[in-house]
Formats: sequence, C-alpha cells, structure tokens
Amino acid sequence: MSPKVSDSTIRRLSHYLRILEAMERRGGGTVSSTHLAEAAGTTAAQVRKDLSLFGSFGKRGLGYQVADLAGRVRDILGLDRGWRVALVGAGRIGSALFEYRDFRRRGFHIVAVLDRDPAKVGVRWGEVMVEDVETVEAVLEREAVEVVILTVPAPAAQQIVDRVVGAGVRGILNFAPIQLRTPPGVFVHDVNMVMELEALSFDLTNRDFDVERSGEG
Amino acid sequence: MSPKVSDSTIRRLSHYLRILEAMERRGGGTVSSTHLAEAAGTTAAQVRKDLSLFGSFGKRGLGYQVADLAGRVRDILGLDRGWRVALVGAGRIGSALFEYRDFRRRGFHIVAVLDRDPAKVGVRWGEVMVEDVETVEAVLEREAVEVVILTVPAPAAQQIVDRVVGAGVRGILNFAPIQLRTPPGVFVHDVNMVMELEALSFDLTNRDFDVERSGEG
Repeated sequence: MSPKVSDSTIRRLSHYLRILEAMERRGGGTVSSTHLAEAAGTTAAQVRKDLSLFGSFGKRGLGYQVADLAGRVRDILGLDRGWRVALVGAGRIGSALFEYRDFRRRGFHIVAVLDRDPAKVGVRWGEVMVEDVETVEAVLEREAVEVVILTVPAPAAQQIVDRVVGAGVRGILNFAPIQLRTPPGVFVHDVNMVMELEALSFDLTNRDFDVERSGEG
Repeated sequence: MSPKVSDSTIRRLSHYLRILEAMERRGGGTVSSTHLAEAAGTTAAQVRKDLSLFGSFGKRGLGYQVADLAGRVRDILGLDRGWRVALVGAGRIGSALFEYRDFRRRGFHIVAVLDRDPAKVGVRWGEVMVEDVETVEAVLEREAVEVVILTVPAPAAQQIVDRVVGAGVRGILNFAPIQLRTPPGVFVHDVNMVMELEALSFDLTNRDFDVERSGEG
C-alpha cells in the first residue's frame, strides 16, 4: 500500500471505523459518504478521497455497505489480526492501561508486563506475571512481542527503548514525556498528556472566545 | 497575542520548555537556537520563527538566557499561574491521572473529583472527596474550576460535557474515545490512546522499514 498516506488520513480512518462500528451495532445497512462525513465532522469529498487511496469502495449513488466498509477499514489499519503487546512500566498509568478494555477490544493483547521494582516483579496481573525489566530481551522474544507500551519515567525511557529496539520490536506507544530516538523502520507514537494540557492552557490564555484554531503552520 | 498560532507551534513550545527546564536544572547559562533546535529535533530557523511570534528574544550572536527564555515560554503557554481542575470519572484512568505528578508540577491542580458510582461517591482521594456527578454544576462553581479532565466511558461523555460547558468551563481534556460537540469558545483536547495504537498498527502493517512518514495531507 501507498507509503504516502498522511497521519491525518490514518486518524480519520480510525474515526470512520468507530462510526461504522456504531452503525454495525445498530444494524448496519448502507451509508453515504455524506452521512459518514457528517458523523466524522469532515466533508464527503474528504471521505471519498481518504478511501480512494486504498482502492475502490461502494457503488456510485448507492453508498457503502456498512459491514463491508468497516471490514475494509479494519484491514487497512491492520486490525484484522491480533497484536502481541508488552507493557514496560507497571506503575499507575501502566496498571490503568492493562485494564483498559478498549485495547483488548481492538486486538491489542498485553502478553507481558515488566518493571524494575523488585516489589512488583513476581506479582500476578490477571494471567500475566510481572517480570524484571533486566530480562526484557528474553521476555520479548519468548512472547513474540510486536508492540511495546512504554509507561516508565522519562529518565529511564531512552535506555529501555534502545534495548526493546535491539530485541527487534518495531512499534512503540510512548507515554514518557520525552522525544525518543529510534532508528528508521521503528514506529513511535506518543501519548503526551501534559503537552495536551499545556496546549489547553495556551488556548485558555491566548485565544478569543470565537476564534477557531488554525490547523496549519 | 496572535490567534494565528498553529497547534504545531504550541507543541514545539511545550517541547522547548521541557528542554529548557532540563538545562535550568543543570545550571542554566545560555543556549543558541541551533542547540535548542538540535535537542528538539527541529531547525534553528524554526525555533527563531516560533519564538518571534511572541516578540523578541535573545541577542543576535549571544543566544538566549536559559532561565529567561524558560520563563517567557511558561508565560506564553499560560503556565505562570495555577489552573483549577476537576476530574470527572473516578475509574482506573482517572485514578492514575489523579496521582500523575507531572500534572501538579505543571500547575494543574485537581480540586474536585466526580463520579456517578454510589460506591465511589464519598470516598476520600487525598485531600479531595469524590462527589456525585449529578451535582457537577454546583461543584464546578464552588471550586471555581477552569479545566475538566474527562475520563468517563464514551456513551456518557457528551451529556456530561454539555453540563460542564453549561456551567461555564471552557477547557476540556478528553480521554473518552468520542468526538465531543462543544460551542465556539470551548477548547477540547483529546487524548486518544486507541487511535494512537491503531496508527501504530497501520504503520507496522503498511509502511516499509525505511520510509519516513509524510507529515501532511
């Protein structure tokens, strides 16, 4: 598939999928690009453009079959399979994510949990035992882990990522408030909650009541 | 200040601030735009352009005073003051965020916690007592809340946001995987962890090892 797909297209695909799955739960049927666009807060032209990147969908004038389109979008996003995930960092955020049902629902299965705190190592979390982060390479290999969720403090993050990448993992969801350095071919997505709060602080401090944010720059 | 500042500029400002504060802890001194740009993974021209939006900083050829620039960026982001925050949703994610030290360090003080579960209402969280979400308007007014962190399930989110906005709150950090509808003048920032994992899934499924992501489109 095209490597030229932008981050914003992928975000919209996630969003379409969420809407389509809600429609599936209400019985499916068909949906027009106009209707899907309205629910997603975008334009029908944008919906058609996003989908056309991945082949042809729907029939002119008939709209899309909801179940069919949801399946195709799941395929595009690589969600038509499960992902084996390790959680590195068994603190509060890590423990909240471990229990987060939406991850499992989406096919992200946490098959290993690691921490460096001896008080946590050996503790059972559901079907998983917390293991010593010193053994991270062996654990990642044993469990055939493909994705690491990183919830360690910022100062520890880079060193752990180096080891995780050295062990062959190519996908990282990073919660540490730090810019990780990784080689080409490794994909890092950041969840930076403090940065979002700072952007909110900026908005509340600087923006007029009725001024829209500019999306670009 | 200019309402034309883009989201990406604000994100970079947050990032510069994190770097400057690390430099402050190591003793401060001065920093060149080149050095700051390297640490932030951008260009010196970009650093100068971002800062120039907010007035003049530094002296040509002398770089910036670290402590001075950090203070100015804190001012720009509105972090030179504290923010009164209510947490709506006392589940696992909410409880992890309540204990998240980086929020407090940045001046975001959680002064109220609300939930609809009778088993949670009345329970003490540190200095705060969990209150019934049915009383949300009264709590927000009593505590002079400016920012709400929303960690309720998706189906409950819109109704609560309507009440929160009705009570005069203009800043929302949303963890519910749903696109909230709010009137102009209300600022919503989303932390969508599932969407980030889906983007990671797309990357691992579709992108070549050495292909850079395109930033636009």
